[in-house]
Amino acid sequence: MSDVLEAIEIKKRGGELPESLIRSVVEGYTAGRIPDYQMSALLMAVFIRGMGYEETLALTRAMADSGKRYSFPGCVDKHSTGGVGDKVSLTALPLAAACGAPVAKLSGRGLGITGGTIDKLESIPGFSCSLTEERFRRQVEEVGLAIAEAGELAPADRAIYALRDATGTVDSLPLIGSSIVSKKAATGAGHLLYDVKCGSGAFMRTPEEARELARLLIRLSEDLGVRAAAMISDMSRPLGRAVGNALEVRESLRFLRGEEAPRDLGEVARSVAVRLLELKGVSEPERAVGRALASGAAYELFVRFVRAQGGDPDSLADLPLSSEVREVPSPGEGYVERFDALGVGRAALLLGAGRQKKGDPVDPGAGVELLVDLGDRVEEGQPVARLYGGREVGRAAGLVSGALVLSPKPVPPPPAILDSL
Amino acid sequence: MSDVLEAIEIKKRGGELPESLIRSVVEGYTAGRIPDYQMSALLMAVFIRGMGYEETLALTRAMADSGKRYSFPGCVDKHSTGGVGDKVSLTALPLAAACGAPVAKLSGRGLGITGGTIDKLESIPGFSCSLTEERFRRQVEEVGLAIAEAGELAPADRAIYALRDATGTVDSLPLIGSSIVSKKAATGAGHLLYDVKCGSGAFMRTPEEARELARLLIRLSEDLGVRAAAMISDMSRPLGRAVGNALEVRESLRFLRGEEAPRDLGEVARSVAVRLLELKGVSEPERAVGRALASGAAYELFVRFVRAQGGDPDSLADLPLSSEVREVPSPGEGYVERFDALGVGRAALLLGAGRQKKGDPVDPGAGVELLVDLGDRVEEGQPVARLYGGREVGRAAGLVSGALVLSPKPVPPPPAILDSL
Repeated sequence: MSDVLEAIEIKKRGGELPESLIRSVVEGYTAGRIPDYQMSALLMAVFIRGMGYEETLALTRAMADSGKRYSFPGCVDKHSTGGVGDKVSLTALPLAAACGAPVAKLSGRGLGITGGTIDKLESIPGFSCSLTEERFRRQVEEVGLAIAEAGELAPADRAIYALRDATGTVDSLPLIGSSIVSKKAATGAGHLLYDVKCGSGAFMRTPEEARELARLLIRLSEDLGVRAAAMISDMSRPLGRAVGNALEVRESLRFLRGEEAPRDLGEVARSVAVRLLELKGVSEPERAVGRALASGAAYELFVRFVRAQGGDPDSLADLPLSSEVREVPSPGEGYVERFDALGVGRAALLLGAGRQKKGDPVDPGAGVELLVDLGDRVEEGQPVARLYGGREVGRAAGLVSGALVLSPKPVPPPPAILDSL
Repeated sequence: MSDVLEAIEIKKRGGELPESLIRSVVEGYTAGRIPDYQMSALLMAVFIRGMGYEETLALTRAMADSGKRYSFPGCVDKHSTGGVGDKVSLTALPLAAACGAPVAKLSGRGLGITGGTIDKLESIPGFSCSLTEERFRRQVEEVGLAIAEAGELAPADRAIYALRDATGTVDSLPLIGSSIVSKKAATGAGHLLYDVKCGSGAFMRTPEEARELARLLIRLSEDLGVRAAAMISDMSRPLGRAVGNALEVRESLRFLRGEEAPRDLGEVARSVAVRLLELKGVSEPERAVGRALASGAAYELFVRFVRAQGGDPDSLADLPLSSEVREVPSPGEGYVERFDALGVGRAALLLGAGRQKKGDPVDPGAGVELLVDLGDRVEEGQPVARLYGGREVGRAAGLVSGALVLSPKPVPPPPAILDSL
């Protein structure tokens, strides 16, 4: 009996897969020796029967080992489970780097509602995330922050993820956890903070689901030799007011320069930076973060980082946005109770800020800028959002308008960070 | 969301699939619109979560409707779940036909330990199971018995079965039941007896499993408009003493001529014929069966049937066997307690009587002839079996010798029929 059939026999009856079998199935599938139809049967058995922690750890290890592994034991990194307007990498990472925690971030290109961090950075004219390994390493040492695209991280995870996406086996905790940690372990940062998003714009809909995933991510990372921590942050609304690549970089720059920034973005970015410094063992992290913002050190580090990766620092003063702009009026009056992340994210996608399928071009100047915060009082007809971009503007406006929930009574703004682990 | 993804979402959480969804998935898979990897994920979800009776009935109907459907409402047929030395079709069907129950049997070619009924019949020189539909119908009317190969019965079942075989999803009661009944319903006989085999040489290992399958087969058949009954017969040993195509036809002919036949074969063949006559509503079926054997009418009908399908009736007196013959001596002395069906069947397969994979040629003259019955006293070195065929004789002899279990004390022979439903 082949390895994959043996694994299917065990798992379909709820048994435990031995580590050697998991490894040979992962290797066989990555090498193309195991056909998709056998792997999908095994994934469905795993989906329904579940996997114990030891099996999940073995799967994570096997996937991490399926491609090139990097090693940056002195560096920190963060991973977000993905959300709308998520500019935490653009803000918290230069801030942590400016406080003495070097950042080596290797990522893939985003597929989803809005672009990934790489897409956002590449809205800066000249900026490139295609770095040789040697240049990447040198930049980490010299600047303290480098973000590059890594094509070959955990190829087994990439192949398995594509199959899960087509076979209804995505929403399984052990499969989600092993997928995330295998890629992060392969990037080699020694200290990791997981930002697990929770709410309508995120994969985890309830805080309890998010906490369960966060605990699994920490345990798997620690067992793979990475110091790890996690926070649960709210993604029932976009983070900050900007959604879209250049719009998000502009908002991030305002924060790094110490200018006025949305309260929730400031809270999350500072907190992530502090927790990364704690993981790294930097003393008095909150004071360090406050100083780096007040002194301009965080912004200066970001400018050096942009220059090192080919970006034009002069462009940062006024990053180009789409010239096609439309304001969305409030459909009624009251207090902003919700501005649904999923609706705003879909609108930004329609306007051209993200990819509907792999390989789609992204419009760096497209997106949605919210003009009100949760808790604000608005009148009927008052502009509540500004749309940038020329694609499907009418549908996007309808989505944004429908995402706004008004209350007749004042509502206190909710916390941006729901829990820390 | 596509139909198959919708079905996966429902079934992976243990929900019930609506009939319309089952039908569109079966049609989509048969037409090649649904890829194997999605169908195998759905099959695994069905395997683990199970299917209720209504879902199983809907699947059976959809698969029966996936190809050509025949209609022979006045005819009887039987179906065996497969065993070693299973010559019930060769004996019980001409017997029932001779008693006034016309038989219209359409089958596929066997893949397994020994050939199927068609392979056995084609060991008669000139005999062919490739009949046009018109000729088949005429022969049913004129001779009362016709057995033909039908290529297009339930193509959905064929495709799904091949995928199940490769993905560890064979041993699922609703999938087994719907597979069997969809094919039989498509052949169109109005009265069906299921011979569910139980024991080492069969798929169902315990009488309770066999009874559960039998009950499902009857219920599905009745709901598809077929009068149905079932029996559970013992397959811990081969049926009769002959295993292999020409060997089994020779043994069947001896039974039909009223000559000496193994007790178990006689018991099962008569019982199946009687129950088919009962289903058809023939009065005094046991007397009719006794008369047809004693008068030679059953044998004469078989000869007419052979002639109608191109076989040489003169060859029946001495069907050719392999000239390579070897006897297997008893490894000890005692009473025959078991002669394991699986071991004897594997030996016949090695000698060339069956197919190891699709398209393999079958040697009509190869097989195993047992020389002792259960309960017989044997001495060490006494021949207990005769092997026919030139392939892998040494390994086959070892398997047959290992299949013989001797007891120091006399053992009563067990019943051949374990239950009737």
